[in-house]
Amino acid sequence: MAQGAIKKVVLAYSGGLDTSVILKWLQEEYGCEVVTFTADIGQGEELEPARAKATAAGVKEIYIDDLREEFVRDFVFPMFRANTVYEGEYLLGTSIARPLIAKRLIEIAAETGADAIAHGATGKGNDQVRFELTAYALNPEIKIIAPWREWDLLSREKLMTYAEQHGIAVEMKRDGTKSPYSMDANLLHISYEGYDLEDPWVEPGSDMWRWSVAPEQAPDQPTTIELTFAHGDLVAIDGQTMSPAALLAELNRIGGANGIGRADLVENRYVGMKSRGCYETPGGTILLKAHRAIESLTLDREAAHLKDELMPRYASLVYNGYWFTPERQMLQAAIDQTQQVVNGVVRLRLYKGNVMVVGRKSETDSLFDASIATFEEDAGAYNQADATGFIRLNALRLRVAGRKRG
Amino acid sequence: MAQGAIKKVVLAYSGGLDTSVILKWLQEEYGCEVVTFTADIGQGEELEPARAKATAAGVKEIYIDDLREEFVRDFVFPMFRANTVYEGEYLLGTSIARPLIAKRLIEIAAETGADAIAHGATGKGNDQVRFELTAYALNPEIKIIAPWREWDLLSREKLMTYAEQHGIAVEMKRDGTKSPYSMDANLLHISYEGYDLEDPWVEPGSDMWRWSVAPEQAPDQPTTIELTFAHGDLVAIDGQTMSPAALLAELNRIGGANGIGRADLVENRYVGMKSRGCYETPGGTILLKAHRAIESLTLDREAAHLKDELMPRYASLVYNGYWFTPERQMLQAAIDQTQQVVNGVVRLRLYKGNVMVVGRKSETDSLFDASIATFEEDAGAYNQADATGFIRLNALRLRVAGRKRG
Amino acid sequence: MAQGAIKKVVLAYSGGLDTSVILKWLQEEYGCEVVTFTADIGQGEELEPARAKATAAGVKEIYIDDLREEFVRDFVFPMFRANTVYEGEYLLGTSIARPLIAKRLIEIAAETGADAIAHGATGKGNDQVRFELTAYALNPEIKIIAPWREWDLLSREKLMTYAEQHGIAVEMKRDGTKSPYSMDANLLHISYEGYDLEDPWVEPGSDMWRWSVAPEQAPDQPTTIELTFAHGDLVAIDGQTMSPAALLAELNRIGGANGIGRADLVENRYVGMKSRGCYETPGGTILLKAHRAIESLTLDREAAHLKDELMPRYASLVYNGYWFTPERQMLQAAIDQTQQVVNGVVRLRLYKGNVMVVGRKSETDSLFDASIATFEEDAGAYNQADATGFIRLNALRLRVAGRKRG
Amino acid sequence: MAQGAIKKVVLAYSGGLDTSVILKWLQEEYGCEVVTFTADIGQGEELEPARAKATAAGVKEIYIDDLREEFVRDFVFPMFRANTVYEGEYLLGTSIARPLIAKRLIEIAAETGADAIAHGATGKGNDQVRFELTAYALNPEIKIIAPWREWDLLSREKLMTYAEQHGIAVEMKRDGTKSPYSMDANLLHISYEGYDLEDPWVEPGSDMWRWSVAPEQAPDQPTTIELTFAHGDLVAIDGQTMSPAALLAELNRIGGANGIGRADLVENRYVGMKSRGCYETPGGTILLKAHRAIESLTLDREAAHLKDELMPRYASLVYNGYWFTPERQMLQAAIDQTQQVVNGVVRLRLYKGNVMVVGRKSETDSLFDASIATFEEDAGAYNQADATGFIRLNALRLRVAGRKRG
Repeated sequence: MAQGAIKKVVLAYSGGLDTSVILKWLQEEYGCEVVTFTADIGQGEELEPARAKATAAGVKEIYIDDLREEFVRDFVFPMFRANTVYEGEYLLGTSIARPLIAKRLIEIAAETGADAIAHGATGKGNDQVRFELTAYALNPEIKIIAPWREWDLLSREKLMTYAEQHGIAVEMKRDGTKSPYSMDANLLHISYEGYDLEDPWVEPGSDMWRWSVAPEQAPDQPTTIELTFAHGDLVAIDGQTMSPAALLAELNRIGGANGIGRADLVENRYVGMKSRGCYETPGGTILLKAHRAIESLTLDREAAHLKDELMPRYASLVYNGYWFTPERQMLQAAIDQTQQVVNGVVRLRLYKGNVMVVGRKSETDSLFDASIATFEEDAGAYNQADATGFIRLNALRLRVAGRKRG
Repeated sequence: MAQGAIKKVVLAYSGGLDTSVILKWLQEEYGCEVVTFTADIGQGEELEPARAKATAAGVKEIYIDDLREEFVRDFVFPMFRANTVYEGEYLLGTSIARPLIAKRLIEIAAETGADAIAHGATGKGNDQVRFELTAYALNPEIKIIAPWREWDLLSREKLMTYAEQHGIAVEMKRDGTKSPYSMDANLLHISYEGYDLEDPWVEPGSDMWRWSVAPEQAPDQPTTIELTFAHGDLVAIDGQTMSPAALLAELNRIGGANGIGRADLVENRYVGMKSRGCYETPGGTILLKAHRAIESLTLDREAAHLKDELMPRYASLVYNGYWFTPERQMLQAAIDQTQQVVNGVVRLRLYKGNVMVVGRKSETDSLFDASIATFEEDAGAYNQADATGFIRLNALRLRVAGRKRG
Repeated sequence: MAQGAIKKVVLAYSGGLDTSVILKWLQEEYGCEVVTFTADIGQGEELEPARAKATAAGVKEIYIDDLREEFVRDFVFPMFRANTVYEGEYLLGTSIARPLIAKRLIEIAAETGADAIAHGATGKGNDQVRFELTAYALNPEIKIIAPWREWDLLSREKLMTYAEQHGIAVEMKRDGTKSPYSMDANLLHISYEGYDLEDPWVEPGSDMWRWSVAPEQAPDQPTTIELTFAHGDLVAIDGQTMSPAALLAELNRIGGANGIGRADLVENRYVGMKSRGCYETPGGTILLKAHRAIESLTLDREAAHLKDELMPRYASLVYNGYWFTPERQMLQAAIDQTQQVVNGVVRLRLYKGNVMVVGRKSETDSLFDASIATFEEDAGAYNQADATGFIRLNALRLRVAGRKRG
Repeated sequence: MAQGAIKKVVLAYSGGLDTSVILKWLQEEYGCEVVTFTADIGQGEELEPARAKATAAGVKEIYIDDLREEFVRDFVFPMFRANTVYEGEYLLGTSIARPLIAKRLIEIAAETGADAIAHGATGKGNDQVRFELTAYALNPEIKIIAPWREWDLLSREKLMTYAEQHGIAVEMKRDGTKSPYSMDANLLHISYEGYDLEDPWVEPGSDMWRWSVAPEQAPDQPTTIELTFAHGDLVAIDGQTMSPAALLAELNRIGGANGIGRADLVENRYVGMKSRGCYETPGGTILLKAHRAIESLTLDREAAHLKDELMPRYASLVYNGYWFTPERQMLQAAIDQTQQVVNGVVRLRLYKGNVMVVGRKSETDSLFDASIATFEEDAGAYNQADATGFIRLNALRLRVAGRKRG
């Protein structure tokens, strides 16, 4: 990547082994100043250790930001307005966080006068694409360093060796064990890849999962909750208004406790190969079901169908990293246009992995009219004879074809 | 419906109250001969009583056909190749059966020299449309009698009175009670509408459901099954090859026992109103999940995404009754084109309402290549440096826009 | 249409034979007061005769409105932002005017306390649908009288007889002849149906066309014009700013003089049959070509492609009369989102039926960068080596499939 | 491109300057044996000089193939069944030829035991992608050499110098001048890029065009032709049956003589930049118009609309080089499914750049029924009263929304 000399680089830094090695490597290989950026997007880890480590590594400009509210409000919620699911299963927990982190990297680069950014995503995954597309979209002149595509530390073994040679601590996880999986977490989900997941016929060990109990271990009593929506976004749980991040955290807690939101799937990466991933998305799984339910009551049929047809495209855009693009904004405009009327309450029963919709209502925007749908005689709103003409004209082209062609 | 004198009509006849009244009403109002047609599509009712009643009502031509295999092979399976779901929730159990019944009505009309068909669907629902679009598509000259749109027996009360006046037995259901719900059943599902479902905020009584136990009542031990697919269709359960109808019946049994396949939803009818429906689709729910899983391993990414984008359209066509149409056949051709390689086995764990994919494999057609996806160094199949160019060219249009517009 | 007694009806009234008969018929059959509404949407006819006739027929409330600016600004221009063409050929000149007229009918009904509207569209065409869908969308309680679907004056012969019997003048056209075609005109187009067009193998007589010369009769010298766009809408011709209606009128004049905008086609009506129509849309034909050209310079590739994919759906919505619907508004939001950057100038050469784009530029929003696209060496903006990675990763899924399946 | 040693490479070889330099460069840089492949796809150049030059350059295996029939039959015609147009203007003349050439390269590699292929496409264009995607799809192990991405001869100047230094003749074009444009030709079109086209505001010189006269120079008398279609493909001109390639050649001749098929446009390349291109596609322009016309008569409305919605996607696939992919085959299956009934004759008038449809008929498959569409009373096929119900049920959802929300 002949990009000319780099003077200062902003690194997406977690404080873990990989990005600690990258920090060192950047200082050594590029001989440039490194700014670290550590974001709280709800991954559930302490951030102060990252500050301490960065300081110890000689970093002078250290950014640690709490992005949880922005993450849920401006990324997760807009995505859920579209009922977004990638390939029928994946709720895009990792995908949706990357544009936010990359956007902040670019902002910090501007603030600190850095001419480059760096990230710890590998050369085989989607995250490198998501980071870099966003970065280029927001600053076309930015230089990007992706160490995993440049260095030769391509196995875990080599990485550990480098760490040891450079005095970088290889810590255990908080629970005292080192997970064999490659993981990613934020307020929307936690993901697992690699290790025994590399054989799609093999079920992962039950100790892999971290955010939810197994359905089999969930309480024997169902939990019933009511979710309130305003303009397509969740605004309250059981009548209690909370901030977006607080709402999602609470849904995660409730869902995880009831064994909700696990997914085990084979997905198609944007870079061209299939990969096996496992995900826990407790709150998102509930939110998707509830959002669909409130839409079922308030959304016009044709708008709803058009949303369903556009959704896979939207999901691919998010999965592939095209958040800050004209085409995503175009689809978002269409989606958001429909959500003004998506107001009301959904009642759900949660039980051992199940999310069951058991009621939905909307004082202001319900389009359900029992007096029309009823099997009993209605008051004139619907004239059954109209159906004859409706059917006959819809059938006309088929009848003409039948007549003409026998 | 000024259709001129009708001489003979083929009636879709269940032997129940409604179609018994229609049979009588046709004989009286139209003064025409009635041919009855009763189909076994897996609704789980004895058909011989229908024969006896028709005979008693003076019917001379009585057709009773077992259409279960044709139903699953030529209608259900092709639909599941598309992963069809209407409005995110409904598996189209009723919708998919109607074109088959209408097709058989038209065939019988031809065999018996009838000039008309009749059905017992109401003037407010989707079924009238599905029956009639199919009938017109297959015989553009057919006359159609839809008594619910013609007569004035528009309440259950009036219908019962008519039945009593004409000596038509108003039987109780087999279980000794009369369900307050309007129901429809076939090998794919059983549906419920009306009664307390007319308030979408109210949960139906737990005694409504007939095909499945509640998740709460399902066994505490999971059931694990393996489903084998060939060319996109289910061909075996736990290695045991069965006919299409037998496979679906067995999946229903297993699913129902594990509390799988209940849905409670508000849907948009083709005739223009929203309605609340509850559905039990145990086998279909398992089948959908498993089909997606085997596709995830064997289908090309872009083909899979295109299928996902076309699916909502396909689902609307089935829901609205456009099975025998050029546009459905067009979509089917696209879908079927992809299924040649959809071969392999999916392992599922069923537990209290959950269908969990825990393994998938395909000897012949897996596109999963662990050696490429691995986080460890690979043998040269994938060059991480390629990602740089991939990202940079995908970003180019965004960078140009950024440069040009600041 | 058992709609109860109607007291006052607003009639879309042209003053021609058909609507004069309808006016009389409404007074006689319905015994109700009639309000007439005559709109100037650029059809090129004097409106004052309509006032005189309505007065003579005893009408007390007469509305004559100049809707030309609203028509072009709020209906034609938004539609052209989508590059809308129905079935590859038809620029929707009639379709796009109907929602405006129906909206005004509903407004006048509210102003005059009328409980019904009436129109002169036949029972076989699209216009009845367009009028009535709009009316119902804007006032769900409105009653609608469509005389052509009610009365028995179903041939031109019977209509003339009725007119004579009721003293309604059957005037000749201004040019002293009565066109044998059914025609409709507004600022966007003039259309012809019926008569010798009913055989799609036969070319219409050359004297049918009214707005344009034949290409063969057009000037031997080309005309060059420059069209300026702002936010996707035409704002100036040859640098001269004009109102929307004035711009379209001027484009019609220029285009018609150069033999531009004739179309002869078979289209699919929403009510189910195919029909042959001929159209002259001189200004619209130029506008479409120019709008595409300015978009080609300023629109992002993926936004442009998404627009192209959505366009046929949008066109069907307009053709079918679904202007005032959530789904059209949803698509419009997506389309309009893209047009902020559609600014610049297009130079066109018009010659005997041809509209040739010969230049396009945008000071502010061009995404064209000759330094990147050039075949000569560029200054580093584009690294040719990037293409290798781009291709290799895009090919990866295909290569894996090839390897796995031979 | 660390691909290991290459022993034998098949080069797509025209005998022109660029590929002659490449031939030499391959021999020198790679030290490998070169097989040349020259295809006749209707570019209108003698092929024997290529043989002579290759022989002179020491090539032992020389392939010269006439692919014209395969090109039109298996690539051009299937594409025209979809009415394919890229970005509203471009008929994909270059794009559609590339997969065929790449397929033949791979076949020859297999026949000659070559382990690599090479082509002369630049690193900034679409053609490299089209060649290489096809190659990888058909042989995942093939090695690909793209000299323009490897060498440093990146300006025309350097290339000429290299040629002179290596004794490669730099010939003039047949007309004695060297065109300043980058051109590509085959039976479907000829294209121009570069030079004064790099400013999209500037009109190219009138001497650029080679295949067609300017509309201004075309005959003053129109030419009328009749095109016969069978199953969606052109089979005869004026009743004269010809082979696919002969038909297209004849259409080119007729179209070119009448000034038909020039396009001047800005397009979006797959590699990310906009570029200006000019094209002459005389036969294709006529074919597209005629195919749409015969479809307008014979295709079901919904099938036609679905084709229109899928077309932009299909066009992008062809443009981007994804011909031999599951998703293109999937779309092709859908398209081809509709073409069985696309039979009949279209009459066209060609005049100074205009292609005017003036008649269309189909003995066997017309869906046009004048007796239904007529404005006069019909014989009962269409009941105008049906329209009331049709409209009322289509409006129902809009009315309910109006009632519920005021």
